[in-house]
Amino acid sequence: MNRSLPPAQIVISQAMIDAYAAISGDFNPLHVDPEAAARTPFRGTIAHGCIPMEPIFQSVQRWLGVAVLPEGAKMSLRYLGPSRPGDTIHIEQRNKEDIAAADTVTLEFVCRNQRGEAVIEGHCVVPAASGEGCKEPAGRSP
Amino acid sequence: MNRSLPPAQIVISQAMIDAYAAISGDFNPLHVDPEAAARTPFRGTIAHGCIPMEPIFQSVQRWLGVAVLPEGAKMSLRYLGPSRPGDTIHIEQRNKEDIAAADTVTLEFVCRNQRGEAVIEGHCVVPAASGEGCKEPAGRSP
Repeated sequence: MNRSLPPAQIVISQAMIDAYAAISGDFNPLHVDPEAAARTPFRGTIAHGCIPMEPIFQSVQRWLGVAVLPEGAKMSLRYLGPSRPGDTIHIEQRNKEDIAAADTVTLEFVCRNQRGEAVIEGHCVVPAASGEGCKEPAGRSP
Repeated sequence: MNRSLPPAQIVISQAMIDAYAAISGDFNPLHVDPEAAARTPFRGTIAHGCIPMEPIFQSVQRWLGVAVLPEGAKMSLRYLGPSRPGDTIHIEQRNKEDIAAADTVTLEFVCRNQRGEAVIEGHCVVPAASGEGCKEPAGRSP
């Protein structure tokens, strides 16, 4: 079993935020209007909440060896601050050893920007059989 | 204070998944290659994990009256099954009354597709002062 989460990062740009607005339908000026956002306490646009979460999904899914989280996987996240165009967000594993309960593994992590500021922290609980090279997640058949 | 989460939904398409692949850099064939995905147990492409979460963010943020989650907000999610092109995912609130602790409010929810199947369930814990019409989240100043 891999003992640590693989590295993953995302480089945030205004173009990426604009594209995410089109996907989500969330065109709040705080995300897509730099001039309006500059007049808020944030003093500029900030990314939609899902965008800085992306390194978490990528790293955990690579650790699992699957393209999606397995059924029953739990993700707990705490938001610590906004992410902005120009930020690079990467994931760091917090628990050096996997904490294996009877049938689950807990992966603790924090996402930081290029200034070392934590923007999201949390943990993911996945089945203990995961991460051992299984190539197909235990998903629902259509 | 609003006592219930406003409705929110997302209609998933292959074009949306392809656009999300470009944002995230996650071009796994299970997401973007219908022919290859058809040969997996999923029998077709499935959406990246963040996409069916979008109604959660939209509803909670509308409930809060802010464009992003406030600092310290916690989101706990459990994955129950994949979402596919053609699916419409909507959020349903589970707790009819907000559970107000000393200084937080817990919103419980489930996301279902158009067949009524639950794909994500979870809860969000936000500061109790939220959702009372505050227009600026307590974010970090740059």
